[in-house]
Amino acid sequence: MSYTRQTILEMAGYTPGEQPRDRLLVKLNTNENPYPPSPAVTEALASLTTAGLRLYPDPLARALRQEAARQWNLSEDAVICGNGSDDLLTIGVRTFVDQGGTIACPDPTYSLYPVLARIQGARTIHIPLDETFNPPPDCARQAAGSSLLFLARPNAPTGNAFDLSTMHQLCRDYQGIVWIDEAYADFAADNCLDFVHKYPNVVVSRTVSKSYSLAGIRLGLACAQPPLIEQMLKVKDSYNVNALTQTLGLAALKDQSHMQTNVKRIQATRRWAADELTALGFQVLPSEANFLFARPPIPADEYAKALRAHHILIRYFPGERTGDYARVTIGTDADMQKLLQATRTILADQ
Amino acid sequence: MSYTRQTILEMAGYTPGEQPRDRLLVKLNTNENPYPPSPAVTEALASLTTAGLRLYPDPLARALRQEAARQWNLSEDAVICGNGSDDLLTIGVRTFVDQGGTIACPDPTYSLYPVLARIQGARTIHIPLDETFNPPPDCARQAAGSSLLFLARPNAPTGNAFDLSTMHQLCRDYQGIVWIDEAYADFAADNCLDFVHKYPNVVVSRTVSKSYSLAGIRLGLACAQPPLIEQMLKVKDSYNVNALTQTLGLAALKDQSHMQTNVKRIQATRRWAADELTALGFQVLPSEANFLFARPPIPADEYAKALRAHHILIRYFPGERTGDYARVTIGTDADMQKLLQATRTILADQ
Repeated sequence: MSYTRQTILEMAGYTPGEQPRDRLLVKLNTNENPYPPSPAVTEALASLTTAGLRLYPDPLARALRQEAARQWNLSEDAVICGNGSDDLLTIGVRTFVDQGGTIACPDPTYSLYPVLARIQGARTIHIPLDETFNPPPDCARQAAGSSLLFLARPNAPTGNAFDLSTMHQLCRDYQGIVWIDEAYADFAADNCLDFVHKYPNVVVSRTVSKSYSLAGIRLGLACAQPPLIEQMLKVKDSYNVNALTQTLGLAALKDQSHMQTNVKRIQATRRWAADELTALGFQVLPSEANFLFARPPIPADEYAKALRAHHILIRYFPGERTGDYARVTIGTDADMQKLLQATRTILADQ
Repeated sequence: MSYTRQTILEMAGYTPGEQPRDRLLVKLNTNENPYPPSPAVTEALASLTTAGLRLYPDPLARALRQEAARQWNLSEDAVICGNGSDDLLTIGVRTFVDQGGTIACPDPTYSLYPVLARIQGARTIHIPLDETFNPPPDCARQAAGSSLLFLARPNAPTGNAFDLSTMHQLCRDYQGIVWIDEAYADFAADNCLDFVHKYPNVVVSRTVSKSYSLAGIRLGLACAQPPLIEQMLKVKDSYNVNALTQTLGLAALKDQSHMQTNVKRIQATRRWAADELTALGFQVLPSEANFLFARPPIPADEYAKALRAHHILIRYFPGERTGDYARVTIGTDADMQKLLQATRTILADQ
């Protein structure tokens, strides 16, 4: 006999991108920011003492909620903090989707969504994106009957941001929760934060992992109308955001200027790297994120493997819709020069 | 219409103990350790730089798992790390209990267990402890049909540790997972860690919150035979323990001597405070934890309220089984002197 729920037994776990201990690798595989976090975070770290760590952290992370609410022009009770935005996605599924229920998400998208559904014992409706990786006109109809629709905007691993008019239409037409995952939104031209004022069924989630260079501290933030936040607060672990993260995360949020400067550098590198890869024969999709999704002139799995031999890590997603593409995180200009140089060598060797 | 699952809508959230910002209060309400963590943790904190925080942490927290496995004489794949032991309790319910399923736990015990069951959409069998707050002889029979039996040892809020022979019997007789919550075990005379070698259905969880003075960093550890750990790893969030906590937690675990010195001080204070309260007319239950569960000579709710006026926080749990008692965390000798002085004043005012 097994002690484990059938849904867990039968599933494979989620496979996160490789986190190699070899720091000599050029790491362009998990969409981390190549620049250090704000000097204000360094100051906040230096100010921390261990004496305070004997106490539990604020269970509601009020200082963080207040700062995010201020920046987003919302009330504090419209914001919830998570142990990374993955924690918030988990909380969302557990709040809104029953075992035996259904979620919906585009295909391709962030591969964690179906895994979270599976853990909950729920089914996933995969809605194929069109040939430009945008939602089909009947997206809401295909999602009908599910309780929660995940839309990553910009989408991963494709990098494009679905049209705002499409997003509005989906929020109006879909009958359940529309969870807009804005992990990459700081790198995009626009975002859906103001949807929260308009739609009672919308949740927007953010993270400090990418634009704030703080993947290591695990801090996610989500906003929605207070009745939804109230229910999600019941589901989260009481002390889900630790004391260190509350202090460092607050310092990071308060320094918008540092974040925006890094975002601009990454956007500039993104434009240049896209042009260079295009010149080398790649089909590069338009990106609003801190990565490029590009079809190499050689099989993408071979390309990823060859880069590894050059000590460069990128992410390859097998499968019908994604298997022809490589996902390359935008690093520093020097990182991208190494990538381009290795790419030229690999292509010349063919 | 509501977007929220019925089970969440109908439940009240868990209420954690108050975390006041007023640091002048004597805080004896949430079982924190009154002494600072190891100097090795202070050194580890000083060695942290923010540059590394741009990267994701090790999803498996391997250094922590290896250290715990070494200390517990287990293999690394018999250990899982959590964002506090509450995260591990959540993972346990999600791995082993279906929506519509059942858990079992003593009454009274840690009030989070039924809340976690409720979030999962599961029912709780409450097994009344006897008049000495020990499990009834037919405990396994009462728990029959449930998937997971939570046993806190030492138990909260009562402070006693169930007999080891009773624990062995329960692990043999109960057909589901026996989750032994050892959050307070470092303060006890013995523990159940070696049960993991013997029983394929046992999970033992620990925390650095109490004995290691690190409630603020959120680190829990659980051990079980590898087939159980393998399933729980599928359910945990990929990056559930952040980079800061992995570094500080490892430093803490490695300094067993500091932890044990503090434990001995707290045990000595516990003996003395129990004697003093007894002399003041309290009925003090035997405690193997870092708190006392004691029946004051005046109504316990009035006692807690009166202490608050003296700027001393303790925890009061209303209810038939617990409402006559006050739960008092063991602080420093000075903290306890203040408690005793205030208590004398309160009793004299009656």
